[in-house]
Amino acid sequence: MDQICYKAIGIIESPFDHAINMPVQSLVAEDIRGKIVLDPKYVEGLKDIHQFSHVYVIYHFHLSRGFELVAKPFLDNNEHGIFAIRAPRRPNPIGISIVKIEKIVKNVIYFSGVDMVNGTPILDIKPFIPQFDIPNDASSGWMKLKNVELGSTKSDSRFVKKNL
Amino acid sequence: MDQICYKAIGIIESPFDHAINMPVQSLVAEDIRGKIVLDPKYVEGLKDIHQFSHVYVIYHFHLSRGFELVAKPFLDNNEHGIFAIRAPRRPNPIGISIVKIEKIVKNVIYFSGVDMVNGTPILDIKPFIPQFDIPNDASSGWMKLKNVELGSTKSDSRFVKKNL
Repeated sequence: MDQICYKAIGIIESPFDHAINMPVQSLVAEDIRGKIVLDPKYVEGLKDIHQFSHVYVIYHFHLSRGFELVAKPFLDNNEHGIFAIRAPRRPNPIGISIVKIEKIVKNVIYFSGVDMVNGTPILDIKPFIPQFDIPNDASSGWMKLKNVELGSTKSDSRFVKKNL
Repeated sequence: MDQICYKAIGIIESPFDHAINMPVQSLVAEDIRGKIVLDPKYVEGLKDIHQFSHVYVIYHFHLSRGFELVAKPFLDNNEHGIFAIRAPRRPNPIGISIVKIEKIVKNVIYFSGVDMVNGTPILDIKPFIPQFDIPNDASSGWMKLKNVELGSTKSDSRFVKKNL
């Protein structure tokens, strides 16, 4: 199939320079702050985004190399298909995080909920709209079997060591 | 900035051949069925995905051409920044839908909640995990001002006519 090519619209500034020992999900990283630094030429596209509490950030796992079709997620010791987990080593290394907007200054969105590496290229930003984005009957697969402390689980090197 | 290139991992089969008169969001298209036809070489990546009720489908708006930084969404008559709405004519034309899995047969996921055009190239599939994906304090910007019948609002040609 043909290639589908994009250009980064901006960059994530994060306290994490490596993909190790990071929070494994943004919603459990509420106290960790980062910035979406949008290319200034797109700043008009942020109009009214301050009305939302949360946005989706869609980004490129730029440190990821190659992929596996089955892998163990950070929160489980069983292998699952790559499309049933969120690991970065995917056929297309695209990440999604739901982050909370703290403030917006010109082309910079200050947010909490950082689970991305510093310098991550951003592909898109979309508003989180509860009416669209919360199914009322969702069930959570292998996660529902887990009784884990999400807040205290950090990433380890399992998806990194093959990447560098 | 450098280009970031992906390849489609599969194709959406949908009853909609054009981006006009479609449901505007997947969660309000519960009775409309479609298929994720995954490239068979990735089928192992679906392991355990049947344990989830919903998945994110990340796809390329292949009919979209160009972009505007402000636009009127289908559900509002006011202009908003492109990053505060879901319209397809975006700097990077990436779409996300949350769809409900009906059944899985080999490399095909039958789902309900179709708001994509037939033939849409799929970039990624991720599990919807309520513990990660439902912020408990989300507010919904311009949408909360609206008292619209989501189920009866359909797409019109506003994002299409400039694309063809």
